[in-house]
Order: sequence, then C-alpha cells, then structure tokens
Amino acid sequence: MTSPACPPHGFPTAEFEARLARAQGLMDAQRLDALLVTTPPNFRYFSGFATQFWESPTRPWFLVVPRDREPIAVVPEIGGPGMALTWVRDIRTWPAPRPADDGVSLLAAVLNAVPRRHGRIGGEFGREHSLRMPLTELDALRERLSGPTLVNGTPCLWDIRMVKTGAEIERIRFVCQITSLAYEALPEKLRIGDSEWEAVRKLRIDVAERGVDATPFMPGIAGPGGYAQIIVGPTDRRIEEGDILFIDTGNTYDGYFCDFDRNFAFGRIDDAARRAHEAIWDATEAGIRAAVPGATTTDVWRAQMQVLEKAGSRGNNVGRMGHGLGMQLTEPPSNMPGDDTRLVPNMVLTIEPGMEYAPGRMLVHEENVAITENGAELLTRRAPREMPIVTR
Amino acid sequence: MTSPACPPHGFPTAEFEARLARAQGLMDAQRLDALLVTTPPNFRYFSGFATQFWESPTRPWFLVVPRDREPIAVVPEIGGPGMALTWVRDIRTWPAPRPADDGVSLLAAVLNAVPRRHGRIGGEFGREHSLRMPLTELDALRERLSGPTLVNGTPCLWDIRMVKTGAEIERIRFVCQITSLAYEALPEKLRIGDSEWEAVRKLRIDVAERGVDATPFMPGIAGPGGYAQIIVGPTDRRIEEGDILFIDTGNTYDGYFCDFDRNFAFGRIDDAARRAHEAIWDATEAGIRAAVPGATTTDVWRAQMQVLEKAGSRGNNVGRMGHGLGMQLTEPPSNMPGDDTRLVPNMVLTIEPGMEYAPGRMLVHEENVAITENGAELLTRRAPREMPIVTR
Repeated sequence: MTSPACPPHGFPTAEFEARLARAQGLMDAQRLDALLVTTPPNFRYFSGFATQFWESPTRPWFLVVPRDREPIAVVPEIGGPGMALTWVRDIRTWPAPRPADDGVSLLAAVLNAVPRRHGRIGGEFGREHSLRMPLTELDALRERLSGPTLVNGTPCLWDIRMVKTGAEIERIRFVCQITSLAYEALPEKLRIGDSEWEAVRKLRIDVAERGVDATPFMPGIAGPGGYAQIIVGPTDRRIEEGDILFIDTGNTYDGYFCDFDRNFAFGRIDDAARRAHEAIWDATEAGIRAAVPGATTTDVWRAQMQVLEKAGSRGNNVGRMGHGLGMQLTEPPSNMPGDDTRLVPNMVLTIEPGMEYAPGRMLVHEENVAITENGAELLTRRAPREMPIVTR
Repeated sequence: MTSPACPPHGFPTAEFEARLARAQGLMDAQRLDALLVTTPPNFRYFSGFATQFWESPTRPWFLVVPRDREPIAVVPEIGGPGMALTWVRDIRTWPAPRPADDGVSLLAAVLNAVPRRHGRIGGEFGREHSLRMPLTELDALRERLSGPTLVNGTPCLWDIRMVKTGAEIERIRFVCQITSLAYEALPEKLRIGDSEWEAVRKLRIDVAERGVDATPFMPGIAGPGGYAQIIVGPTDRRIEEGDILFIDTGNTYDGYFCDFDRNFAFGRIDDAARRAHEAIWDATEAGIRAAVPGATTTDVWRAQMQVLEKAGSRGNNVGRMGHGLGMQLTEPPSNMPGDDTRLVPNMVLTIEPGMEYAPGRMLVHEENVAITENGAELLTRRAPREMPIVTR
C-alpha cells in the first residue's frame, strides 16, 4: 500500500479570503465588529501563520479580524518577518518582551480604531477556549478601550471553525491515511516485553517517516485484558502476555489533526475481550452510519450507545462518544446527550465508543469521518474487527 | 559516543513533598492561602500527573495547592483513575464534559474550605501565564467564592519553578545530551536539495530513536548566508548551495525541555558568515562565563552583547539573549536589560546570542546551562566554533 498524495504545506490566499468572508457574515449576524484572536489555532486559521513558537509562553500575539476588512496582526518584533510571509498585509509590531506594556497599548489603539456598528468585539472567552495572554494584561487592555466592549466571541469562533473547507478536510484525510498505514504496520514491530514507551516510540518514528509534521498526542496504555483509563501513559512498564495495548494518536499535517486509536493484544486474547472489541467495532459502524446531514450529535451518540448496551457495557469514564476534529485534537461538537448539534456537510467528527466490559477493563475504539451530502466519509482506514495479536 | 544514562520516568513521592514544602514557604511569605493551578506544567510540577491529554481543550483541570496541606485535585471523571496513580490522595471528580457546570461548583466548594489565614488564593493570572479555563467559567467561579479572593499568584509560581531540584536538572541534562548527539550526527544525513521539512524530519526521527519523549518544537529555516527570522518554518522550500540552515529544538524527556539550536552551511560558507558564526559562538562563551551565582540576567545579556557589538552586530529581533528553561521551552527570567534577576544555584538558563551581520542575514546560537556554586555547568554538548558544512 503506497501513501496517499501529500498536499503541499500552506494555503493559497483565496482560501483565507473565503474563510474571512464566511466569518464576517457570521460576525455581523452575531453583532460583532471584530474578533480578537490570541490562540494558535484561531490565529493560524485566519492568517496562515505557521509557527511552532507558541511553545514559548513569554510573548502574547494578537490578530484582530474586523467585520468589514482584512485582519490586522499585532505581534512581537520577533514575528514581524514571519508574518510578512503570510497573506496578512497590516502588521504592527512592538519590541518584545516588554513586561511593562507587551503589546497592550498597540492592541488597544487598533481595537479602538475598528469601525463601530455593534460596539462589540468578540474574544476567546467561552467553552473549549483559553485566552492566550495574561489576565493582568487583559485587564490593562480593557482599561485602554475607549469605544468597543469585549464580549464572549467563542460561539462565533466555533460556528466558523466547525464547518471545514475542502482544503482543510484534504489535510485531515492525509494525516488520517498515513497514520492508518503506520497503525497497520505496527503489530509486526511490537514485541512482548516492550515497555509502553518503546511500543509507542515505534509508532512515533513510523509516522514521522511517513510524513506527519508533528505528534502532539500519542498516549499508550497496556493492561491485562484492557485498561482502566486512556489518558495517562506510556510508562516504563513492560507489556506482558495477556495485555491489551491501547494507542491513541493525534498527529498533525499542515496544522490539522487526526485523532484515532487502535488496540493490540499481546500473546493471546480471551473471549470476553474479543467480544468487547467486536462490540466497540460494531458501535463504531453504527456511529458512522448515523453521522448523516440532518442528524444530531446526540443521534450519533445514541446509535453507538445502543450497540454497547446490548453488549453489556458497564459504561465508561470518557463522558462522550466522539467530537469535532480539525486544528485541534478535540473541538466542538460533542457526541453526547444534550449537545444536539445538527450535522451539516463538511463537519469532521471522531466516532469514539468505549465500554468497560469487566471491572477495570475498558476498551475504546475510534475512527474519523467527514460529513458529506451522502453520509459519512471515512477519513481513516477502517480498523479490523478482530484485534491484531502480537505473537513474538 | 554512547548516550548518557536515561533516568526513569516519574519522580518519587519525596520529590513532590520537597517541592510542596518549599512552595508552601514561599506562599506563606507572599500571603497566599493556596495556589489554584490549571496549566499543564504547574499541574504536573505539584502532582506528577503525566498526561498528553492537555491537547484536548474541552475540559478544565484544577489542582489546589494549599499553604498548609497536600494538594487537592479537582478533575474530570476521565482523569480519576490516572490521578490515582500519582502521589495526590485527595481527588474529586465530576462527570465531564458538562457545559452547564464543568467543575466550577466542585472547585468553589474546595476553595471555600481552604483554611484561611491571608484570605487570598493565587491564580495563574500574570506574566508568561495563560489560565487554562474559559474566562466565562472563571467569572462563574468568582461568583461562588464566599471567603477567599483570587489574586495574581504568578510571581509566587515563578519563584517556585525558577529554581530547579537536582532531579529536574538531571532530566534537562539528559534531553540536552541526546539532542546534542543527534545534532552532531545530522550533517552526515543532510543533503543539498533537501526541503526544509525533509532536513528537520531527519533530526526529528533521530531524537525519537535516541529516546526523547516528544518534540513540541523544531523549527528549521534556511536562507542564503543566513535567515531573517527564526520562528516560521520549516517550509517545502529546497535548501540550495550557499544556504545556511538553522534548526532550533525543544524536545522533552519526562516533562522537561531542552532548547538550543545549531547552524549548518550547505556547499560553502563565505567569510562574513564564518566570522559572524565565530562571533555568536564567542558571545555564547562569554554568556556562559558570566552566568555565575550573584550575577544578574542583565550581566549575562551584557557579556554577550559586548562580543556582538565588537563584531559589528546590526542587532536582532529576538528581544533578549536567553531565558529560563525547564517544564516549558521558555520560562522566566530573561537575559535582557531591565530583567535584573539575581542568579542562584539550580537555575537553568539558555544562553542565546544572535546578530544580523548583513541586511536580512541573521545568525542565532544557543546552549543550555545550569547555575552551580562554581559557575555555569554546560548541559548541552558545546557546538563547534566552525559551522559544519554539508557537502553532498
């Protein structure tokens, strides 16, 4: 199996113009004169600014996205030449770090000059958002605003990002496909007696060789017949006969994530675990079939839940069965009761059922899909219904 | 050259007890009854909770570190079994995601019950901190607090984390050493005509094979005789004869970062670039020699600056010449005028001079050191003064 064609890094200006036009319509409808953006995915979504420098918390970065004109970047001097490589033409810089005024007065001047219709500027203040600037500096900013009021812009931002463009889906598909191939090649490389770290590292190296840009997320947890939790690991513990190893991963390509997992049995698999794996595989099928335009995230949850309940699930601690996927490992919406988000074409979802089939023995499975007019398109290569067994 | 011994993952309980005792002394001195912690490094520093699940922004996580007792974890249900693997004994969970009340009422009850001496609880509100929870939920939390006031706890948190323990330095040293070995092996693997992405990927794979846990930061930028910026890249652009490739990297081991760079000439190097590289190498030497207990970060900056000015530097856009290093790629303090942090043993610093030696041609260099009673201990393996040349 050869790898799928690799899209080039970066998007043409037309992509950003189209994103901006759609965003401006939503902003106006939600009575916002601008969005104020500080976090890596939102900043990159509108500007195309591709940096790993977000790892340094020292300097804040600001992008102002007005309702009626192109974005304005207000960035530390170290970012000026890099911003000039993007489609953003209005770039303001200050010499940073400058603790006494790290961009605040410059940003206030830009926000005060935004043409006023609604008098409201939306910040990243709500659900599944953390503002990337010190709160003390947000307070200082508020004091310097002479016209507009900062309000919660999170609902608008998620409305914008929840529905992907074709170019975005192309990147998610690519990273899903090469990660699938690496998962398929993994059982041959795993050995009974590997530590969890060693096992995970084999996958990490393979996905790098196949062309992912980065691997921000790759937990691995093994336990006899299953696992009690899916977020702490790998550890230095050695994997033994009878263990099931769970690996989940969010790799990125050009700023876009995959997010799916696989299970591997070591030495043998008992009947109860085999049946549980078949149940979560079947629940995934049901979730994929339910993910059609017009259905809701709650419908997608229910379709999975019904299969798991029939199979005797004791529940699980994940709290939902899949979620949005894109520039972040998890994004709204959530497949769970009460979410009730109506699916429309070009949303990307994970389908992620999990069940505890015996005390302390959970199994979780996951695939990624894009919603199309004709139903869910599988972006990942479907896992086998039978769990692969590592025999050496 | 064989790799240095790999420390085991994780710390003994005594490490966390010692961190807590020191932190509690600083908290009391700064009139705080507790710290409220939400961000990955602070959460892990006090609890030992090692997860990659921070990549999911959906759920907030809280750790309350009281002035007079052990930490209390207030975490989503998905994290309960993983938290139970740490030294933290008081773990409260709620079923998450639960948008209407994602841990806020549970956290408020814990904070209201913290024994009161000063009436103040310190949050991650200040410099080089971004609170990891929605602001709307912080507002809801404040409304539910009946006793204590939330204040800026950032100065206290940085006082705590700026001085490392021996076990922390051991991990930084390890990741610095294996990353150094990978940098040393890289010129043999690079080829004229590699894309920036291909070049960087060779290093990414090698550091994974040598045992880093993750590579959150690895930009690479090439240009004729130097580069204009150091934070946007790699790109798909092919590296040509006469280019200089800059690679910087922050790899992690057991939660601790290295942060240093190297330069590679392709095909040839002209005299001006050679002299500039010698100047930044010499400036690094001067910075390392200046990094002694009792000196300040401003002294370390000045020592580097004097060498660069003599060499005809036109300045640079980085804004400082090194910074603190630990659980984050960059931490306080900053080597720059006005910072004036007094160095004490067990601080870890990067020494990072950079100069523009011709218009648009910058070179930056970097090493990592730990401050000891006897001066700076080099944690990295010192780069060669002569820039390596890739000839194939």
